[in-house]
Amino acid sequence: MHERPDFARLLGLHGDVRIDYIESESLAGNPLGDPAVRPVGVYLPQGYDAEASQRYPALYVLHGYTGDSAALLASRPWETNVFQWADRLIEQKRMAPVLVILVDGFTRLGGSQYVDSIHNGRYATYTVRDVVGHVDREYRTVATEHGRAVLGKSSGGFGAMHLVLEHPGTFAAFASHSGDSYFRYAHIPAFATVQRTLETHGFNVAAFVEGFERKHKRSAAEYTTMEMLAYAAAYSPRDAVPFDLDLPFESTTGELRQDVFARWLAFDPAERVAGRRAELARLRLRYLDCGRRDEYNLDIGARVVSERIRALGLEVRHEEFDDDHRNVGYRYEISLPALAAVLDHA
Amino acid sequence: MHERPDFARLLGLHGDVRIDYIESESLAGNPLGDPAVRPVGVYLPQGYDAEASQRYPALYVLHGYTGDSAALLASRPWETNVFQWADRLIEQKRMAPVLVILVDGFTRLGGSQYVDSIHNGRYATYTVRDVVGHVDREYRTVATEHGRAVLGKSSGGFGAMHLVLEHPGTFAAFASHSGDSYFRYAHIPAFATVQRTLETHGFNVAAFVEGFERKHKRSAAEYTTMEMLAYAAAYSPRDAVPFDLDLPFESTTGELRQDVFARWLAFDPAERVAGRRAELARLRLRYLDCGRRDEYNLDIGARVVSERIRALGLEVRHEEFDDDHRNVGYRYEISLPALAAVLDHA
Amino acid sequence: MHERPDFARLLGLHGDVRIDYIESESLAGNPLGDPAVRPVGVYLPQGYDAEASQRYPALYVLHGYTGDSAALLASRPWETNVFQWADRLIEQKRMAPVLVILVDGFTRLGGSQYVDSIHNGRYATYTVRDVVGHVDREYRTVATEHGRAVLGKSSGGFGAMHLVLEHPGTFAAFASHSGDSYFRYAHIPAFATVQRTLETHGFNVAAFVEGFERKHKRSAAEYTTMEMLAYAAAYSPRDAVPFDLDLPFESTTGELRQDVFARWLAFDPAERVAGRRAELARLRLRYLDCGRRDEYNLDIGARVVSERIRALGLEVRHEEFDDDHRNVGYRYEISLPALAAVLDHA
Amino acid sequence: MHERPDFARLLGLHGDVRIDYIESESLAGNPLGDPAVRPVGVYLPQGYDAEASQRYPALYVLHGYTGDSAALLASRPWETNVFQWADRLIEQKRMAPVLVILVDGFTRLGGSQYVDSIHNGRYATYTVRDVVGHVDREYRTVATEHGRAVLGKSSGGFGAMHLVLEHPGTFAAFASHSGDSYFRYAHIPAFATVQRTLETHGFNVAAFVEGFERKHKRSAAEYTTMEMLAYAAAYSPRDAVPFDLDLPFESTTGELRQDVFARWLAFDPAERVAGRRAELARLRLRYLDCGRRDEYNLDIGARVVSERIRALGLEVRHEEFDDDHRNVGYRYEISLPALAAVLDHA
Repeated sequence: MHERPDFARLLGLHGDVRIDYIESESLAGNPLGDPAVRPVGVYLPQGYDAEASQRYPALYVLHGYTGDSAALLASRPWETNVFQWADRLIEQKRMAPVLVILVDGFTRLGGSQYVDSIHNGRYATYTVRDVVGHVDREYRTVATEHGRAVLGKSSGGFGAMHLVLEHPGTFAAFASHSGDSYFRYAHIPAFATVQRTLETHGFNVAAFVEGFERKHKRSAAEYTTMEMLAYAAAYSPRDAVPFDLDLPFESTTGELRQDVFARWLAFDPAERVAGRRAELARLRLRYLDCGRRDEYNLDIGARVVSERIRALGLEVRHEEFDDDHRNVGYRYEISLPALAAVLDHA
Repeated sequence: MHERPDFARLLGLHGDVRIDYIESESLAGNPLGDPAVRPVGVYLPQGYDAEASQRYPALYVLHGYTGDSAALLASRPWETNVFQWADRLIEQKRMAPVLVILVDGFTRLGGSQYVDSIHNGRYATYTVRDVVGHVDREYRTVATEHGRAVLGKSSGGFGAMHLVLEHPGTFAAFASHSGDSYFRYAHIPAFATVQRTLETHGFNVAAFVEGFERKHKRSAAEYTTMEMLAYAAAYSPRDAVPFDLDLPFESTTGELRQDVFARWLAFDPAERVAGRRAELARLRLRYLDCGRRDEYNLDIGARVVSERIRALGLEVRHEEFDDDHRNVGYRYEISLPALAAVLDHA
Repeated sequence: MHERPDFARLLGLHGDVRIDYIESESLAGNPLGDPAVRPVGVYLPQGYDAEASQRYPALYVLHGYTGDSAALLASRPWETNVFQWADRLIEQKRMAPVLVILVDGFTRLGGSQYVDSIHNGRYATYTVRDVVGHVDREYRTVATEHGRAVLGKSSGGFGAMHLVLEHPGTFAAFASHSGDSYFRYAHIPAFATVQRTLETHGFNVAAFVEGFERKHKRSAAEYTTMEMLAYAAAYSPRDAVPFDLDLPFESTTGELRQDVFARWLAFDPAERVAGRRAELARLRLRYLDCGRRDEYNLDIGARVVSERIRALGLEVRHEEFDDDHRNVGYRYEISLPALAAVLDHA
Repeated sequence: MHERPDFARLLGLHGDVRIDYIESESLAGNPLGDPAVRPVGVYLPQGYDAEASQRYPALYVLHGYTGDSAALLASRPWETNVFQWADRLIEQKRMAPVLVILVDGFTRLGGSQYVDSIHNGRYATYTVRDVVGHVDREYRTVATEHGRAVLGKSSGGFGAMHLVLEHPGTFAAFASHSGDSYFRYAHIPAFATVQRTLETHGFNVAAFVEGFERKHKRSAAEYTTMEMLAYAAAYSPRDAVPFDLDLPFESTTGELRQDVFARWLAFDPAERVAGRRAELARLRLRYLDCGRRDEYNLDIGARVVSERIRALGLEVRHEEFDDDHRNVGYRYEISLPALAAVLDHA
């Protein structure tokens, strides 16, 4: 009684849960003023403590836009979160024991896209150096590229693809569930909404953000606006002054600004993979899936990315399913064992 | 009793209604097999018959996609159709007497966009030559450019802009209500839906269309698909073989086909107006409006078109209102008098 | 040229169309001030004029709430209205030639429910005496009960059931498509919406109605409110003073007023049929259908009515289909031949 | 490092969090086989441990349908959960320090309604005896009626009202946020949906539930069905055999079963309060609020309950706000201080 709360029990796990806090050098003094001290959620499989000599591969999970570590940890009746999936799959011997690591990439604008940005801070570096470094120091991991995979859903899937392209040698595999890609279809449809919303705030982004934070409840248009601001902060920042962003449309008419959108496309996995054969070739698994009714057309993105990777002569595991963008966590049942299977287990 | 039905009475008009049928030379033998005999709805203001020497300007109304003349004529309780608006405005002396003409541009794919197409037939020519010719022959019109204006909503607004650009000298003014423009925002968001839908039909367009026609009820995705096929038939036909169209996306992945989409953009008013100063300068009124919550982002299109016309040193009447794309017929209250005011009355 | 408009041609009919106007004695001086002169739409099958001695049975069609004769007549591409269905079925020899008659029951509140009401006027009497009387006088009908059937959708289906119960001997058969019934499920869910809407108008019904009429566009809640006012005008009027209605809920809390709702239930087909064996037994066909996803739960109503008629030892033709409440006009394909088949043809 | 996870830090609290597990005697051997060992989430205000002699009042929070303790504990960016609200209000001196207790009332059908049921188990007794007993034993509470309040949202609001009526002397105050009440409006609209859904499962409730549990994703209709089964399990169980329930509608037609629905109404706060003056009079605060756009019409329920309590000569704090049923956790900002203010602080 009165002991400290036990996440593992609350989640009904056979394994165990840690939440460490790291002080990220990469995020120190970031322009937006987001915390440099970040939680790192760690799932330890049953037997981790007892078998003190065994080493485990680690799966790094990136949350989506508006998410954070705590949101990934949350459990709801009739739903299964990523720790619960890993625990169940290991218990059922459908996957060898692994560590699962939750990376916290939240920012004041709702998410960093796991990208180094002069406006947000260095979230890619933070992930591959600070978080991975911490985990390898503090846990008995297979501390090489071949002991690590990265995965995520939506913006987390984007992050997974971004990190394998940007930081080759860190992860040996990625899984992108409904990951952001083919921005022409995923993002352009939102720009009119954002233009309308910001116009009602006189294009004062700071005022919009502060109003958003103060509200009890936000409209769908307000969420969409915040989301596109977050993408601009990642893809087309102007400088390190908070909210000083280049938006991909003209403020007066709303029409596309091709120069700014080109900066976004430079981050689009669909546009990038063709030029990154080396980075992709060293991977043991390239996994993408998406629901065929995805509201952001990310099924098209997954098709385009997959086709372009194949055009490089590389294999891709690409799956589609009959669902939309929300609540597709059940896809972890496929991706976690697939990733674990290609990693080195000590 | 037993007399022939009286549209004017059913619609509660002070004026009168005729529905003529013309045999269009331009549509004769059109590849899709649509009728070359077409109804022309004509509103005659009160006093037309009595004052046998007076001549009247004529406002040509183009229906939207999935519409036809009969749909424009339909009346519903609590709604006011274009004949009823004209009649009311004339009766209230808010507008001088005019003729109002309904142009029927329906095709088997749901609409012609009032464009000459090797696939559909010559709907622009049909409108400016066959329909206008008929009206000028059969009614006491001011039979010059300065006695004619063209207007419409949605695809009808597009048609109005297309015809003043393509057939200068026919109309002295146009009004585009929520007219198709800035296709990058209006149409790109639909392509994923169309790709998914056609894929379920093995990309057999004829099979899709025939299935669509047979159905008791169609889904939103099916309507969207039909709509994009109609646009392809107008903007990017391959030849005169029914349903032989170039689609603006790859059938396998769904990604944009830039070459085909460029053919669409060649029809986009937002892209075209900059190069058509002469055609625009001769107009006495350039009118665009759009609801600021338009689901197809046509408010952005209206802004872009307006700005680009102004950049030519020409005036535009551009209005926005708080509404979405549907049921904005109440805007006729603004556009009809504005058009009538700039035309010559005999 | 310049002849009067031709509905039959516009609708693509083989038969012909008349729109007569009758001056209804029953509606003369009605409290709401709605017109006593009403259009009667008449479909005449091909050959009607030629075969001057033949007599035809007549199918009376009642429009739904917010509808009127003109709305029933309206045609839209890819849709088939009731005249078009009749014409096609007769042409295809799937139904013997019949007259089809459109009854106009619109009121200022959006519909009369075809009920005699001290508040609205005598719409049941108007239908069975004035409209039927006119048709039998002016057309070569089988002018007996066995030459007439009544049908309609939604409120029109309700009206069909109401008239066969209230005026036995007029019609030999009815068809109710998604007809109002089992008010406990159909109407109670709307009362909270109506209470909220009227509260914002200080429960001034006249002010609400006038505001509604003036608006360019109305919200779903406003339509629902108007609809429930129309039902109160039919089922629970207080007197002949316009808008003086007993509402089925308390204005302060919104809770059900059981006494008023009991007056509504007195009109509910589900509640009434058990006591009307004689009226039902004389019918040659009792037909009900409803989509199984009906938003107003009228599928439940159709089941309840059907079961209770069967409990009287009478047969019912009851069908269900996979659809919601809107655009189910394709069901005429079933009901029209079924009704025509049981009527006397001369 | 490697210490046990710290909820308080993850939630950003000044105070502390415990999650105890109790073995509930009341739930032992419950027919549905739900766990008798249950988590009890406890929020301890800053200073609790240090000031070892102070005693605190306790606010018991009941989750809604489909919720559980873990769901109440979950945090999401830009949202504030009940522990976070309490912590913030205490920190800002807007509320005296209190304990906040999370009661877990989840069942296999999605929720117990905090009612003793022969089918589910004794969830009312469990709450007032087992949970309250545990808290009073293990924490420094003001262990009397005047040191306890109960609150919740939706089904949790219902539970709060149920417990003060059913177990007087346990709590001195309640707050119901959008609490279930006036079942005629809240529940009747759902019955058609449930009838349709169960019919597709041949009215085999066990098969439906097992299918529901196995699914990756459930439709809105399936959730509604599960919810109504949960209510039947609480209000109209047939016996202790799992899924042996009396449903409030006929399985064949879907029409209301008045006898069964009467058993539901016996639990309806709107129906009950009139007869419970003594239980209500002893309370120091009776608080109800609801959004005026509540999808379940619970704003009407709150009005009815409030009016009927006032008719007993008792005061009610009743508030309305412009929102719907979802995500109204910001109302804790009002209710928590209001409850805390009326309780005894040692």
